[in-house]
Amino acid sequence: MTGSSLAIDIDKVRGARRELRSDVVAVEEPLEIQLCSATATGAAARSIAVTMRTPGDDIDLALGFLYTEQIIRGPADVVSTMLSGAPDPDSGLRNTIRVELDPALRIDTDRLTRHFYTTSSCGVCGKASIEALQVVIDRPDDDFRLTRDVLASMPARLRGAQQVFESTGGLHAAAAFDTRGEVVVVREDVGRHNAVDKVVGALLAAHRLPAGDLGLIVSGRASFELTQKALAAGMPLLAAVSAPSSLAVRLARDYGMTLVGFLRQDNFNIYSGANRLSI
Amino acid sequence: MTGSSLAIDIDKVRGARRELRSDVVAVEEPLEIQLCSATATGAAARSIAVTMRTPGDDIDLALGFLYTEQIIRGPADVVSTMLSGAPDPDSGLRNTIRVELDPALRIDTDRLTRHFYTTSSCGVCGKASIEALQVVIDRPDDDFRLTRDVLASMPARLRGAQQVFESTGGLHAAAAFDTRGEVVVVREDVGRHNAVDKVVGALLAAHRLPAGDLGLIVSGRASFELTQKALAAGMPLLAAVSAPSSLAVRLARDYGMTLVGFLRQDNFNIYSGANRLSI
Repeated sequence: MTGSSLAIDIDKVRGARRELRSDVVAVEEPLEIQLCSATATGAAARSIAVTMRTPGDDIDLALGFLYTEQIIRGPADVVSTMLSGAPDPDSGLRNTIRVELDPALRIDTDRLTRHFYTTSSCGVCGKASIEALQVVIDRPDDDFRLTRDVLASMPARLRGAQQVFESTGGLHAAAAFDTRGEVVVVREDVGRHNAVDKVVGALLAAHRLPAGDLGLIVSGRASFELTQKALAAGMPLLAAVSAPSSLAVRLARDYGMTLVGFLRQDNFNIYSGANRLSI
Repeated sequence: MTGSSLAIDIDKVRGARRELRSDVVAVEEPLEIQLCSATATGAAARSIAVTMRTPGDDIDLALGFLYTEQIIRGPADVVSTMLSGAPDPDSGLRNTIRVELDPALRIDTDRLTRHFYTTSSCGVCGKASIEALQVVIDRPDDDFRLTRDVLASMPARLRGAQQVFESTGGLHAAAAFDTRGEVVVVREDVGRHNAVDKVVGALLAAHRLPAGDLGLIVSGRASFELTQKALAAGMPLLAAVSAPSSLAVRLARDYGMTLVGFLRQDNFNIYSGANRLSI
Protein backbone atom coordinates (compact mmCIF):
# COMPACT_ATOMS: atom_id res chain seq x y z
CA MET A 1 0.00 0.00 0.00
CA THR A 2 1.49 3.29 -1.07
CA GLY A 3 -1.08 5.33 0.79
CA SER A 4 -3.24 6.59 -2.05
CA SER A 5 -3.67 3.36 -4.01
CA LEU A 6 -3.82 -0.31 -3.08
CA ALA A 7 -3.16 -3.44 -5.15
CA ILE A 8 -5.76 -6.20 -4.80
CA ASP A 9 -6.64 -9.41 -6.64
CA ILE A 10 -9.86 -9.29 -8.62
CA ASP A 11 -11.73 -11.22 -11.33
CA LYS A 12 -11.61 -9.38 -14.63
CA VAL A 13 -14.43 -10.38 -17.00
CA ARG A 14 -14.01 -9.48 -20.67
CA GLY A 15 -16.86 -11.05 -22.57
CA ALA A 16 -16.51 -14.80 -22.27
CA ARG A 17 -13.00 -14.52 -20.80
CA ARG A 18 -12.49 -14.35 -17.07
CA GLU A 19 -9.17 -14.12 -15.34
CA LEU A 20 -7.76 -13.50 -11.90
CA ARG A 21 -5.69 -10.33 -12.08
CA SER A 22 -3.99 -7.88 -9.79
CA ASP A 23 -5.60 -4.46 -9.97
CA VAL A 24 -5.26 -1.14 -8.18
CA VAL A 25 -8.00 0.72 -6.29
CA ALA A 26 -8.02 4.22 -4.80
CA VAL A 27 -7.67 4.18 -1.02
CA GLU A 28 -10.54 5.57 1.05
CA GLU A 29 -10.04 5.98 4.81
CA PRO A 30 -11.62 8.30 7.37
CA LEU A 31 -9.74 11.37 8.57
CA GLU A 32 -10.79 13.05 11.79
CA ILE A 33 -9.89 16.73 12.14
CA GLN A 34 -9.43 17.92 15.70
CA LEU A 35 -8.88 21.45 16.91
CA CYS A 36 -6.80 21.94 20.00
CA SER A 37 -5.74 24.96 21.93
CA ALA A 38 -3.44 25.28 24.90
CA THR A 39 -5.08 26.46 28.10
CA ALA A 40 -3.77 27.23 31.56
CA THR A 41 -4.57 23.68 32.62
CA GLY A 42 -3.27 21.83 29.55
CA ALA A 43 -4.44 21.16 26.01
CA ALA A 44 -8.03 20.41 25.04
CA ALA A 45 -8.87 18.78 21.70
CA ARG A 46 -12.26 18.58 20.07
CA SER A 47 -13.34 16.79 16.95
CA ILE A 48 -14.92 19.07 14.36
CA ALA A 49 -15.17 16.86 11.28
CA VAL A 50 -14.64 13.36 9.93
CA THR A 51 -14.24 13.00 6.19
CA MET A 52 -13.68 9.90 4.06
CA ARG A 53 -10.54 10.78 2.15
CA THR A 54 -7.63 9.34 0.19
CA PRO A 55 -4.54 9.44 2.41
CA GLY A 56 -1.82 11.86 1.39
CA ASP A 57 -1.57 15.63 1.84
CA ASP A 58 -3.59 15.27 5.04
CA ILE A 59 -2.22 18.50 6.48
CA ASP A 60 -3.21 20.38 3.30
CA LEU A 61 -6.67 18.80 3.59
CA ALA A 62 -7.13 19.88 7.20
CA LEU A 63 -5.85 23.42 6.63
CA GLY A 64 -7.86 23.83 3.43
CA PHE A 65 -10.99 22.65 5.23
CA LEU A 66 -10.40 25.10 8.08
CA TYR A 67 -9.79 27.95 5.61
CA THR A 68 -12.80 27.29 3.37
CA GLU A 69 -14.96 26.91 6.48
CA GLN A 70 -13.55 30.28 7.55
CA ILE A 71 -12.25 29.04 10.87
CA ILE A 72 -8.72 30.24 10.06
CA ARG A 73 -7.78 33.27 7.95
CA GLY A 74 -4.11 32.56 7.29
CA PRO A 75 -1.04 30.50 8.19
CA ALA A 76 -0.43 32.69 11.25
CA ASP A 77 -3.57 31.28 12.88
CA VAL A 78 -2.00 27.80 13.00
CA VAL A 79 0.58 27.02 15.68
CA SER A 80 1.17 23.36 14.77
CA THR A 81 -0.31 20.33 13.03
CA MET A 82 0.22 16.75 14.08
CA LEU A 83 -0.99 13.37 12.83
CA SER A 84 -2.12 11.41 15.88
CA GLY A 85 -4.08 8.36 16.93
CA ALA A 86 -3.01 4.74 16.78
CA PRO A 87 -2.00 3.52 13.31
CA ASP A 88 -4.64 1.52 11.44
CA PRO A 89 -3.83 -2.17 12.11
CA ASP A 90 -3.99 -3.01 8.39
CA SER A 91 -2.77 0.07 6.59
CA GLY A 92 -0.46 1.53 9.23
CA LEU A 93 -2.01 4.94 8.55
CA ARG A 94 -2.76 7.50 11.21
CA ASN A 95 -6.19 8.93 10.61
CA THR A 96 -6.47 11.78 13.07
CA ILE A 97 -4.97 15.19 12.51
CA ARG A 98 -4.71 17.63 15.37
CA VAL A 99 -4.46 21.32 14.54
CA GLU A 100 -3.29 23.64 17.28
CA LEU A 101 -4.62 27.15 16.76
CA ASP A 102 -3.34 30.48 17.97
CA PRO A 103 -4.90 30.88 21.42
CA ALA A 104 -5.84 34.44 20.49
CA LEU A 105 -8.03 33.20 17.61
CA ARG A 106 -11.73 33.51 18.31
CA ILE A 107 -13.54 30.53 16.90
CA ASP A 108 -17.06 31.19 15.77
CA THR A 109 -18.86 28.05 16.84
CA ASP A 110 -21.89 29.09 14.81
CA ARG A 111 -19.68 28.82 11.76
CA LEU A 112 -18.81 25.21 12.63
CA THR A 113 -22.48 24.33 12.31
CA ARG A 114 -23.10 26.53 9.27
CA HIS A 115 -23.58 23.42 7.15
CA PHE A 116 -27.03 23.20 8.68
CA TYR A 117 -27.95 26.06 6.35
CA THR A 118 -30.65 27.47 8.57
CA THR A 119 -31.73 30.98 9.30
CA SER A 120 -34.58 32.01 11.50
CA SER A 121 -36.24 33.95 8.70
CA CYS A 122 -36.85 31.34 6.04
CA GLY A 123 -35.81 28.01 7.43
CA VAL A 124 -33.85 25.79 5.10
CA CYS A 125 -33.49 26.88 1.50
CA GLY A 126 -30.97 27.69 -1.17
CA LYS A 127 -31.33 31.39 -0.41
CA ALA A 128 -30.44 30.74 3.23
CA SER A 129 -27.46 28.62 2.15
CA ILE A 130 -26.12 31.55 0.17
CA GLU A 131 -27.02 34.17 2.77
CA ALA A 132 -25.11 32.19 5.40
CA LEU A 133 -21.94 32.89 3.39
CA GLN A 134 -22.47 36.54 2.66
CA VAL A 135 -21.11 37.97 5.85
CA VAL A 136 -17.69 36.56 5.33
CA ILE A 137 -16.94 36.03 1.65
CA ASP A 138 -15.72 38.85 -0.57
CA ARG A 139 -16.52 39.21 -4.26
CA PRO A 140 -13.61 37.79 -6.27
CA ASP A 141 -11.14 39.91 -8.26
CA ASP A 142 -12.65 41.54 -11.35
CA ASP A 143 -9.33 41.99 -13.17
CA PHE A 144 -8.64 38.29 -13.70
CA ARG A 145 -8.70 37.47 -17.43
CA LEU A 146 -8.38 34.15 -19.23
CA THR A 147 -8.16 33.45 -22.97
CA ARG A 148 -10.21 30.74 -24.68
CA ASP A 149 -7.03 28.90 -25.67
CA VAL A 150 -5.76 28.67 -22.12
CA LEU A 151 -9.16 27.58 -20.78
CA ALA A 152 -9.49 24.97 -23.55
CA SER A 153 -6.10 23.52 -22.65
CA MET A 154 -6.84 23.02 -18.97
CA PRO A 155 -8.60 19.60 -18.97
CA ALA A 156 -5.58 18.02 -20.73
CA ARG A 157 -3.19 19.80 -18.36
CA LEU A 158 -5.20 18.56 -15.37
CA ARG A 159 -5.06 14.97 -16.60
CA GLY A 160 -1.37 15.31 -17.28
CA ALA A 161 -0.75 16.50 -13.74
CA GLN A 162 -2.74 13.67 -12.11
CA GLN A 163 -0.61 10.90 -10.75
CA VAL A 164 -3.01 8.27 -9.47
CA PHE A 165 -6.06 8.54 -11.68
CA GLU A 166 -4.58 6.61 -14.55
CA SER A 167 -4.00 3.58 -12.34
CA THR A 168 -7.26 3.49 -10.35
CA GLY A 169 -9.84 5.45 -12.35
CA GLY A 170 -11.30 6.27 -8.95
CA LEU A 171 -10.08 9.70 -7.94
CA HIS A 172 -11.39 13.20 -8.42
CA ALA A 173 -8.82 15.87 -9.20
CA ALA A 174 -8.68 19.61 -8.61
CA ALA A 175 -6.02 22.07 -9.70
CA ALA A 176 -5.26 25.74 -9.22
CA PHE A 177 -3.85 27.38 -12.36
CA ASP A 178 -2.66 30.81 -13.43
CA THR A 179 -3.69 32.91 -16.43
CA ARG A 180 -0.96 31.33 -18.58
CA GLY A 181 -2.46 27.90 -17.89
CA GLU A 182 0.33 26.75 -15.59
CA VAL A 183 -0.86 24.29 -12.94
CA VAL A 184 0.24 25.71 -9.57
CA VAL A 185 -1.14 22.91 -7.36
CA VAL A 186 -2.94 19.68 -8.23
CA ARG A 187 -4.47 17.26 -5.73
CA GLU A 188 -6.52 14.07 -5.96
CA ASP A 189 -9.02 12.38 -3.65
CA VAL A 190 -11.98 9.98 -3.65
CA GLY A 191 -14.01 12.98 -2.43
CA ARG A 192 -14.06 15.98 -4.74
CA HIS A 193 -14.52 18.41 -1.82
CA ASN A 194 -11.38 16.91 -0.26
CA ALA A 195 -9.42 17.41 -3.49
CA VAL A 196 -10.40 21.10 -3.43
CA ASP A 197 -9.58 21.45 0.28
CA LYS A 198 -6.13 19.93 -0.39
CA VAL A 199 -5.50 22.50 -3.14
CA VAL A 200 -6.60 25.37 -0.90
CA GLY A 201 -4.51 24.06 2.01
CA ALA A 202 -1.41 23.86 -0.19
CA LEU A 203 -2.01 27.45 -1.36
CA LEU A 204 -2.39 28.52 2.26
CA ALA A 205 0.92 26.92 3.21
CA ALA A 206 2.55 28.73 0.26
CA HIS A 207 1.08 32.08 1.41
CA ARG A 208 -0.89 32.27 -1.87
CA LEU A 209 -4.31 33.03 -0.33
CA PRO A 210 -6.59 34.72 -1.13
CA ALA A 211 -5.91 33.54 -4.68
CA GLY A 212 -7.39 36.30 -6.81
CA ASP A 213 -4.87 35.48 -9.57
CA LEU A 214 -5.74 31.77 -9.89
CA GLY A 215 -8.57 29.73 -11.37
CA LEU A 216 -9.73 26.32 -10.15
CA ILE A 217 -10.49 23.33 -12.39
CA VAL A 218 -12.27 20.21 -11.12
CA SER A 219 -12.58 16.85 -12.85
CA GLY A 220 -16.27 16.31 -12.14
CA ARG A 221 -19.35 18.40 -11.47
CA ALA A 222 -19.64 21.78 -9.79
CA SER A 223 -21.82 21.66 -6.69
CA PHE A 224 -22.74 24.44 -4.27
CA GLU A 225 -20.08 23.18 -1.86
CA LEU A 226 -17.25 23.29 -4.41
CA THR A 227 -18.28 26.74 -5.63
CA GLN A 228 -18.38 27.99 -2.05
CA LYS A 229 -14.87 26.61 -1.40
CA ALA A 230 -13.43 28.28 -4.52
CA LEU A 231 -15.06 31.57 -3.52
CA ALA A 232 -13.80 31.27 0.05
CA ALA A 233 -10.28 30.85 -1.39
CA GLY A 234 -10.78 34.10 -3.33
CA MET A 235 -10.64 32.41 -6.73
CA PRO A 236 -12.42 34.36 -9.51
CA LEU A 237 -13.04 31.35 -11.78
CA LEU A 238 -14.24 27.76 -11.38
CA ALA A 239 -14.17 25.44 -14.40
CA ALA A 240 -15.80 21.99 -14.21
CA VAL A 241 -15.35 19.21 -16.73
CA SER A 242 -18.97 18.20 -16.10
CA ALA A 243 -22.27 19.89 -15.14
CA PRO A 244 -22.89 22.56 -12.50
CA SER A 245 -25.93 22.45 -10.19
CA SER A 246 -28.60 25.16 -9.96
CA LEU A 247 -27.28 26.37 -6.61
CA ALA A 248 -23.69 26.52 -7.89
CA VAL A 249 -24.91 28.79 -10.72
CA ARG A 250 -26.92 30.95 -8.35
CA LEU A 251 -24.00 31.36 -5.95
CA ALA A 252 -21.56 32.22 -8.78
CA ARG A 253 -23.97 34.80 -10.21
CA ASP A 254 -24.63 36.37 -6.81
CA TYR A 255 -20.88 36.87 -6.33
CA GLY A 256 -19.92 37.73 -9.89
CA MET A 257 -17.66 34.68 -10.05
CA THR A 258 -16.91 33.06 -13.43
CA LEU A 259 -18.40 29.56 -13.67
CA VAL A 260 -17.65 27.33 -16.66
CA GLY A 261 -19.12 23.84 -17.13
CA PHE A 262 -18.83 20.95 -19.59
CA LEU A 263 -15.30 22.10 -20.42
CA ARG A 264 -14.13 19.84 -23.24
CA GLN A 265 -11.34 21.45 -25.21
CA ASP A 266 -12.77 24.54 -26.88
CA ASN A 267 -16.39 23.57 -26.29
CA PHE A 268 -17.78 24.81 -22.98
CA ASN A 269 -20.67 26.59 -21.31
CA ILE A 270 -20.36 29.87 -19.42
CA TYR A 271 -22.88 30.04 -16.59
CA SER A 272 -21.66 33.23 -14.95
CA GLY A 273 -19.01 35.95 -15.26
CA ALA A 274 -18.34 35.80 -19.03
CA ASN A 275 -16.55 39.17 -18.72
CA ARG A 276 -13.36 37.44 -17.50
CA LEU A 277 -13.03 35.31 -20.65
CA SER A 278 -11.56 36.54 -23.94
CA ILE A 279 -13.38 34.41 -26.48
CA MET B 1 -38.84 25.24 -12.48
CA THR B 2 -40.15 21.71 -12.49
CA GLY B 3 -38.45 20.80 -9.23
CA SER B 4 -35.62 18.62 -10.42
CA SER B 5 -34.34 20.73 -13.32
CA LEU B 6 -34.20 24.44 -14.04
CA ALA B 7 -33.94 26.34 -17.35
CA ILE B 8 -31.40 29.17 -17.39
CA ASP B 9 -29.73 31.35 -20.03
CA ILE B 10 -26.06 30.64 -20.63
CA ASP B 11 -23.29 31.36 -23.14
CA LYS B 12 -22.47 28.29 -25.20
CA VAL B 13 -18.98 28.40 -26.73
CA ARG B 14 -18.27 25.99 -29.58
CA GLY B 15 -14.85 26.79 -30.94
CA ALA B 16 -14.99 30.29 -32.41
CA ARG B 17 -18.81 30.41 -32.16
CA ARG B 18 -20.48 31.82 -29.11
CA GLU B 19 -24.20 32.11 -28.59
CA LEU B 20 -26.68 32.90 -25.87
CA ARG B 21 -28.80 29.80 -25.32
CA SER B 22 -31.33 28.43 -22.88
CA ASP B 23 -30.01 25.39 -21.07
CA VAL B 24 -31.16 23.14 -18.25
CA VAL B 25 -29.32 22.45 -14.98
CA ALA B 26 -30.03 19.94 -12.22
CA VAL B 27 -31.56 21.55 -9.16
CA GLU B 28 -29.62 21.39 -5.89
CA GLU B 29 -31.35 22.57 -2.70
CA PRO B 30 -30.84 21.68 0.97
CA LEU B 31 -33.25 19.29 2.69
CA GLU B 32 -33.42 19.22 6.45
CA ILE B 33 -34.63 15.98 8.02
CA GLN B 34 -36.31 16.38 11.41
CA LEU B 35 -37.49 13.65 13.76
CA CYS B 36 -40.46 14.37 15.91
CA SER B 37 -42.30 12.38 18.49
CA ALA B 38 -45.46 13.16 20.39
CA THR B 39 -45.01 13.60 24.13
CA ALA B 40 -47.40 14.29 26.96
CA THR B 41 -46.72 17.99 26.59
CA GLY B 42 -46.84 18.24 22.82
CA ALA B 43 -44.57 17.42 19.91
CA ALA B 44 -40.81 17.96 19.92
CA ALA B 45 -38.83 18.08 16.67
CA ARG B 46 -35.09 17.83 16.30
CA SER B 47 -32.94 18.19 13.24
CA ILE B 48 -30.79 15.16 12.51
CA ALA B 49 -29.41 15.87 9.04
CA VAL B 50 -29.22 18.41 6.25
CA THR B 51 -28.36 17.12 2.81
CA MET B 52 -27.95 18.98 -0.48
CA ARG B 53 -30.38 17.16 -2.75
CA THR B 54 -32.38 17.41 -5.95
CA PRO B 55 -36.02 18.03 -5.01
CA GLY B 56 -38.44 15.20 -5.74
CA ASP B 57 -39.11 11.99 -3.84
CA ASP B 58 -38.20 13.81 -0.63
CA ILE B 59 -40.18 11.40 1.52
CA ASP B 60 -38.37 8.44 -0.04
CA LEU B 61 -35.09 10.22 0.63
CA ALA B 62 -35.90 10.82 4.30
CA LEU B 63 -37.18 7.29 4.91
CA GLY B 64 -34.28 5.70 3.02
CA PHE B 65 -31.82 7.78 5.04
CA LEU B 66 -33.47 6.72 8.30
CA TYR B 67 -33.45 3.07 7.23
CA THR B 68 -29.86 2.94 6.01
CA GLU B 69 -28.78 4.76 9.18
CA GLN B 70 -30.71 2.05 11.06
CA ILE B 71 -32.90 4.48 12.92
CA ILE B 72 -36.07 2.81 11.61
CA ARG B 73 -36.50 -0.90 10.84
CA GLY B 74 -39.69 -0.81 8.79
CA PRO B 75 -42.74 1.20 7.70
CA ALA B 76 -44.46 0.48 11.03
CA ASP B 77 -41.90 2.68 12.81
CA VAL B 78 -43.18 5.75 10.93
CA VAL B 79 -46.42 7.41 12.04
CA SER B 80 -46.41 10.27 9.53
CA THR B 81 -44.24 12.38 7.23
CA MET B 82 -44.81 16.02 6.43
CA LEU B 83 -43.04 18.64 4.33
CA SER B 84 -42.81 21.78 6.43
CA GLY B 85 -41.06 25.11 6.66
CA ALA B 86 -41.72 28.26 4.67
CA PRO B 87 -41.47 27.82 0.90
CA ASP B 88 -38.23 29.02 -0.68
CA PRO B 89 -38.94 32.56 -1.97
CA ASP B 90 -37.52 31.76 -5.42
CA SER B 91 -38.33 28.12 -6.02
CA GLY B 92 -41.46 27.75 -3.91
CA LEU B 93 -40.05 24.50 -2.55
CA ARG B 94 -40.39 23.38 1.02
CA ASN B 95 -37.05 22.09 2.22
CA THR B 96 -37.81 20.58 5.61
CA ILE B 97 -39.29 17.15 6.10
CA ARG B 98 -40.63 16.16 9.49
CA VAL B 99 -40.87 12.46 10.27
CA GLU B 100 -43.04 11.42 13.21
CA LEU B 101 -41.85 8.13 14.67
CA ASP B 102 -43.69 5.53 16.70
CA PRO B 103 -43.36 6.77 20.30
CA ALA B 104 -42.43 3.20 21.32
CA LEU B 105 -39.35 3.29 19.07
CA ARG B 106 -36.12 3.58 20.97
CA ILE B 107 -33.71 5.78 19.08
CA ASP B 108 -30.07 4.98 19.54
CA THR B 109 -28.50 8.39 19.69
CA ASP B 110 -25.05 6.83 19.40
CA ARG B 111 -26.13 5.59 16.00
CA LEU B 112 -26.97 9.13 14.92
CA THR B 113 -23.35 10.08 15.45
CA ARG B 114 -21.93 6.88 14.01
CA HIS B 115 -20.57 8.82 11.04
CA PHE B 116 -17.80 9.93 13.34
CA TYR B 117 -16.39 6.43 12.86
CA THR B 118 -14.67 6.26 16.21
CA THR B 119 -14.16 3.45 18.64
CA SER B 120 -12.26 3.66 21.88
CA SER B 121 -9.93 0.86 20.85
CA CYS B 122 -8.30 2.14 17.71
CA GLY B 123 -9.48 5.66 17.14
CA VAL B 124 -10.42 6.55 13.59
CA CYS B 125 -9.65 4.01 10.89
CA GLY B 126 -11.23 1.95 8.16
CA LYS B 127 -11.43 -1.04 10.50
CA ALA B 128 -13.38 1.05 13.03
CA SER B 129 -15.68 2.29 10.25
CA ILE B 130 -16.54 -1.30 9.39
CA GLU B 131 -16.72 -2.48 13.00
CA ALA B 132 -19.21 0.26 13.79
CA LEU B 133 -21.62 -1.43 11.36
CA GLN B 134 -21.14 -4.99 12.45
CA VAL B 135 -23.56 -5.02 15.33
CA VAL B 136 -26.53 -4.24 13.19
CA ILE B 137 -26.02 -5.37 9.59
CA ASP B 138 -26.66 -8.96 8.52
CA ARG B 139 -24.75 -10.77 5.81
CA PRO B 140 -26.76 -10.58 2.57
CA ASP B 141 -28.60 -13.50 1.00
CA ASP B 142 -26.29 -16.19 -0.43
CA ASP B 143 -28.88 -17.61 -2.84
CA PHE B 144 -29.09 -14.53 -5.07
CA ARG B 145 -27.79 -15.38 -8.59
CA LEU B 146 -27.26 -13.17 -11.63
CA THR B 147 -26.21 -14.13 -15.15
CA ARG B 148 -23.54 -12.27 -17.09
CA ASP B 149 -26.08 -11.27 -19.72
CA VAL B 150 -28.41 -9.63 -17.22
CA LEU B 151 -25.55 -7.85 -15.47
CA ALA B 152 -24.15 -6.65 -18.82
CA SER B 153 -27.55 -5.21 -19.77
CA MET B 154 -27.98 -3.13 -16.63
CA PRO B 155 -26.06 0.08 -17.52
CA ALA B 156 -28.23 0.53 -20.64
CA ARG B 157 -31.38 -0.23 -18.64
CA LEU B 158 -30.35 2.30 -15.99
CA ARG B 159 -29.81 5.01 -18.60
CA GLY B 160 -33.13 4.12 -20.23
CA ALA B 161 -34.93 4.51 -16.92
CA GLN B 162 -33.38 7.90 -16.10
CA GLN B 163 -35.60 10.84 -16.81
CA VAL B 164 -33.56 13.93 -16.08
CA PHE B 165 -29.99 12.97 -16.87
CA GLU B 166 -30.33 13.38 -20.59
CA SER B 167 -31.36 16.99 -20.19
CA THR B 168 -28.92 18.16 -17.51
CA GLY B 169 -25.98 15.73 -17.52
CA GLY B 170 -25.78 16.57 -13.84
CA LEU B 171 -27.50 13.81 -11.90
CA HIS B 172 -26.37 10.56 -10.40
CA ALA B 173 -28.73 7.61 -10.75
CA ALA B 174 -29.32 4.49 -8.70
CA ALA B 175 -31.67 1.59 -9.44
CA ALA B 176 -32.81 -1.57 -7.70
CA PHE B 177 -33.24 -4.47 -10.12
CA ASP B 178 -34.25 -8.11 -9.97
CA THR B 179 -32.47 -11.21 -11.28
CA ARG B 180 -34.26 -10.89 -14.64
CA GLY B 181 -32.82 -7.39 -15.04
CA GLU B 182 -36.12 -5.59 -14.48
CA VAL B 183 -35.67 -2.16 -12.89
CA VAL B 184 -37.88 -2.09 -9.79
CA VAL B 185 -37.08 1.48 -8.65
CA VAL B 186 -34.87 4.16 -10.20
CA ARG B 187 -34.05 7.51 -8.61
CA GLU B 188 -31.81 10.45 -9.51
CA ASP B 189 -30.07 13.14 -7.47
CA VAL B 190 -27.10 15.52 -7.54
CA GLY B 191 -25.81 13.47 -4.58
CA ARG B 192 -25.22 9.79 -5.25
CA HIS B 193 -25.92 8.88 -1.60
CA ASN B 194 -29.25 10.66 -1.92
CA ALA B 195 -30.12 8.69 -5.08
CA VAL B 196 -29.47 5.47 -3.13
CA ASP B 197 -31.47 6.66 -0.10
CA LYS B 198 -34.39 7.49 -2.42
CA VAL B 199 -34.29 3.97 -3.87
CA VAL B 200 -34.18 2.41 -0.40
CA GLY B 201 -37.01 4.66 0.83
CA ALA B 202 -39.22 3.67 -2.11
CA LEU B 203 -38.53 -0.02 -1.39
CA LEU B 204 -39.42 0.57 2.26
CA ALA B 205 -42.73 2.18 1.34
CA ALA B 206 -43.46 -0.83 -0.92
CA HIS B 207 -42.68 -3.26 1.94
CA ARG B 208 -39.77 -4.66 -0.12
CA LEU B 209 -37.09 -4.45 2.61
CA PRO B 210 -34.80 -6.16 3.38
CA ALA B 211 -34.22 -6.64 -0.35
CA GLY B 212 -32.35 -9.94 -0.51
CA ASP B 213 -33.77 -10.53 -4.00
CA LEU B 214 -32.58 -7.25 -5.56
CA GLY B 215 -29.28 -5.83 -6.78
CA LEU B 216 -28.32 -2.16 -6.83
CA ILE B 217 -26.66 -0.36 -9.74
CA VAL B 218 -25.16 3.14 -9.43
CA SER B 219 -24.08 5.46 -12.23
CA GLY B 220 -20.78 6.53 -10.67
CA ARG B 221 -18.25 5.16 -8.25
CA ALA B 222 -18.76 2.82 -5.29
CA SER B 223 -17.68 4.40 -2.01
CA PHE B 224 -17.79 3.00 1.53
CA GLU B 225 -20.98 4.96 2.18
CA LEU B 226 -22.85 3.57 -0.84
CA THR B 227 -21.74 0.02 -0.09
CA GLN B 228 -22.90 0.41 3.51
CA LYS B 229 -26.30 1.67 2.35
CA ALA B 230 -26.79 -1.26 -0.04
CA LEU B 231 -25.81 -3.69 2.72
CA ALA B 232 -28.14 -2.00 5.22
CA ALA B 233 -30.96 -2.50 2.70
CA GLY B 234 -30.11 -6.21 2.59
CA MET B 235 -29.00 -6.13 -1.05
CA PRO B 236 -26.59 -8.92 -2.00
CA LEU B 237 -25.05 -7.13 -5.02
CA LEU B 238 -23.77 -3.65 -5.82
CA ALA B 239 -22.70 -2.83 -9.38
CA ALA B 240 -20.98 0.47 -10.16
CA VAL B 241 -20.38 1.89 -13.62
CA SER B 242 -17.10 3.32 -12.37
CA ALA B 243 -14.41 2.46 -9.78
CA PRO B 244 -14.87 1.22 -6.20
CA SER B 245 -12.73 2.52 -3.33
CA SER B 246 -10.48 0.37 -1.13
CA LEU B 247 -12.88 0.60 1.81
CA ALA B 248 -15.88 -0.35 -0.36
CA VAL B 249 -14.01 -3.51 -1.42
CA ARG B 250 -13.01 -4.30 2.16
CA LEU B 251 -16.57 -3.88 3.43
CA ALA B 252 -18.04 -6.01 0.62
CA ARG B 253 -15.49 -8.78 1.27
CA ASP B 254 -16.07 -8.72 5.04
CA TYR B 255 -19.81 -9.24 4.46
CA GLY B 256 -19.64 -11.59 1.49
CA MET B 257 -21.48 -9.07 -0.66
CA THR B 258 -20.99 -9.09 -4.44
CA LEU B 259 -19.24 -5.93 -5.66
CA VAL B 260 -18.84 -5.25 -9.38
CA GLY B 261 -17.04 -2.18 -10.78
CA PHE B 262 -16.31 -0.64 -14.19
CA LEU B 263 -19.46 -2.30 -15.54
CA ARG B 264 -19.50 -1.54 -19.27
CA GLN B 265 -21.62 -4.04 -21.14
CA ASP B 266 -19.97 -7.44 -20.77
CA ASN B 267 -16.66 -6.04 -19.54
CA PHE B 268 -16.50 -5.64 -15.77
CA ASN B 269 -14.42 -6.32 -12.67
CA ILE B 270 -15.56 -8.50 -9.77
CA TYR B 271 -14.10 -7.27 -6.48
CA SER B 272 -16.02 -9.55 -4.14
CA GLY B 273 -18.64 -12.34 -4.09
CA ALA B 274 -18.05 -13.83 -7.56
CA ASN B 275 -20.09 -16.86 -6.44
CA ARG B 276 -23.36 -15.03 -7.15
CA LEU B 277 -22.50 -14.46 -10.84
CA SER B 278 -22.94 -17.07 -13.56
CA ILE B 279 -20.25 -16.10 -16.06
